[in-house]
Amino acid sequence: MEVSTLLTSYVARVERGLDQLLPAAESRPARLHTAMRYSLQAGGKRLRPVLVLAAAELFPAEGRPDPLPAAVAVECVHTYSLIHDDLPCMDNDDLRRGRPTVHKAFDEATALLAGDALLTHAFALLATGYGAQPALATALVRELGAAAGSRQLIGGQMEDLLAEKKADATPEELEFIHLHKTAAMISASLVMGAIIGGADQTAVEALRTAGRHLGLAFQIIDDILDATTDTATLGKTAGKDAKAGKTTFVQLHGLDASRRFAGEHTQKAVAALARLPGDTAFLSSLAHDMGQRAR
Amino acid sequence: MEVSTLLTSYVARVERGLDQLLPAAESRPARLHTAMRYSLQAGGKRLRPVLVLAAAELFPAEGRPDPLPAAVAVECVHTYSLIHDDLPCMDNDDLRRGRPTVHKAFDEATALLAGDALLTHAFALLATGYGAQPALATALVRELGAAAGSRQLIGGQMEDLLAEKKADATPEELEFIHLHKTAAMISASLVMGAIIGGADQTAVEALRTAGRHLGLAFQIIDDILDATTDTATLGKTAGKDAKAGKTTFVQLHGLDASRRFAGEHTQKAVAALARLPGDTAFLSSLAHDMGQRAR
Repeated sequence: MEVSTLLTSYVARVERGLDQLLPAAESRPARLHTAMRYSLQAGGKRLRPVLVLAAAELFPAEGRPDPLPAAVAVECVHTYSLIHDDLPCMDNDDLRRGRPTVHKAFDEATALLAGDALLTHAFALLATGYGAQPALATALVRELGAAAGSRQLIGGQMEDLLAEKKADATPEELEFIHLHKTAAMISASLVMGAIIGGADQTAVEALRTAGRHLGLAFQIIDDILDATTDTATLGKTAGKDAKAGKTTFVQLHGLDASRRFAGEHTQKAVAALARLPGDTAFLSSLAHDMGQRAR
Repeated sequence: MEVSTLLTSYVARVERGLDQLLPAAESRPARLHTAMRYSLQAGGKRLRPVLVLAAAELFPAEGRPDPLPAAVAVECVHTYSLIHDDLPCMDNDDLRRGRPTVHKAFDEATALLAGDALLTHAFALLATGYGAQPALATALVRELGAAAGSRQLIGGQMEDLLAEKKADATPEELEFIHLHKTAAMISASLVMGAIIGGADQTAVEALRTAGRHLGLAFQIIDDILDATTDTATLGKTAGKDAKAGKTTFVQLHGLDASRRFAGEHTQKAVAALARLPGDTAFLSSLAHDMGQRAR
């Protein structure tokens, strides 16, 4: 199947999963569940859940549990982190994916609680969705718990905030932020798919490495797009990072070097994927296409 | 062992567990980990984790896994909910357990992230602490995920906020809030202890019922104390609920009826405990003592 066709079908599965595996909007309290669905339905690339599905399918189909609950869990965590990141006490952003952010469409308290609920739902979903395979469920909770925790995702957000208050972040600090805030969850998405696929430790580590480089490439490209694209095209406030006094990759290294770094990380991701047994054409193409966005 | 001695020893175990099972304050990002520990170290009654330990010990010791990681997980969830509840967009409280709240001692963004991190850590802790018993780990994540989720704890907080905006909450709405915001986590604490103890379904349900009544009694007593005690004794802003326009149990039913309701729920909790096999003297006494606070 062609890469774009496959991507479309993965995204469609994710959208169906998000609809089926979230509490109904009208269930009490309706305002909370409506806000949770509002934030998830804003669209977006669905990169992380697609990585879960694609990584699982690198491994033999026989006896492989459905990766969809894990894909939805990962998107819940990603979306919660965006909701909280957009709050006034954090990045204070009014626009996300071309729509009002949750605290603008509802209110701050609802946004706070909707984020909390999505985070909680992610773990509950792993425990119920894989309840019949408790060793798998436990491994997935452990992986997601580590990636989303204070030493990874939340740690990256904290360092990001601390860096804002200084004149300039160092290249080391910026890489720490990118690795923790972005690459950790992208890595975990691939690893969770691999665990569901029954991957051995070597394959898990190859996907972890691929995710790390994919995540760094992704974040650098995000910085490049933030510096070179207008708000309408971006669907979120453009040039915001620079205005907020945030050190970006582009500021530290310039556009050309940033493009080169992104390309290098993409290549390293593809190289790690090449060490895997199954058909990695889709994931490699996805990495390549992502790199092309910033050209 | 006397009840107060046993309580002291349970609390001491919880305090040690909190110290051992949380990331070190100095590990990067130190500000985040320091805020997480600051909020946990504020003391408090440790009611929920003590219930986990005491419920587990109703069942035979042989082969029983250590309930401490689950006790710490439950306290992490409780503490995260307090941190987020205290934020300016929620109850906007400056004082908690006699000390500045986390957003006052640090800042709002750090408080938001520390809460997120404690919630995430709770689930990670269950998956790592019971990693050798994955069926148990999965059952615990499922129980905690449900109790802390949008249909229970967070749902109760959302309804609480919605009720504030109306002139008066109805008795039904107030019970919904108490059941979800308070009783769900108290019930889950007892149930998680029971699951660790290897309880059968009948015992699990008896503890769930006991927790429900204990939780309702606890919340009614909290309302009574809020209406009758000064700030210094309470360690948090007294009379705050009434001032915030929140409907309290005391407002709806008066002091006398509130005391009677609290007593009835305490009795029902004790009756449910009496149906259990092991030695329930400690838990029954705890329920009784709690009821005495409001006399």
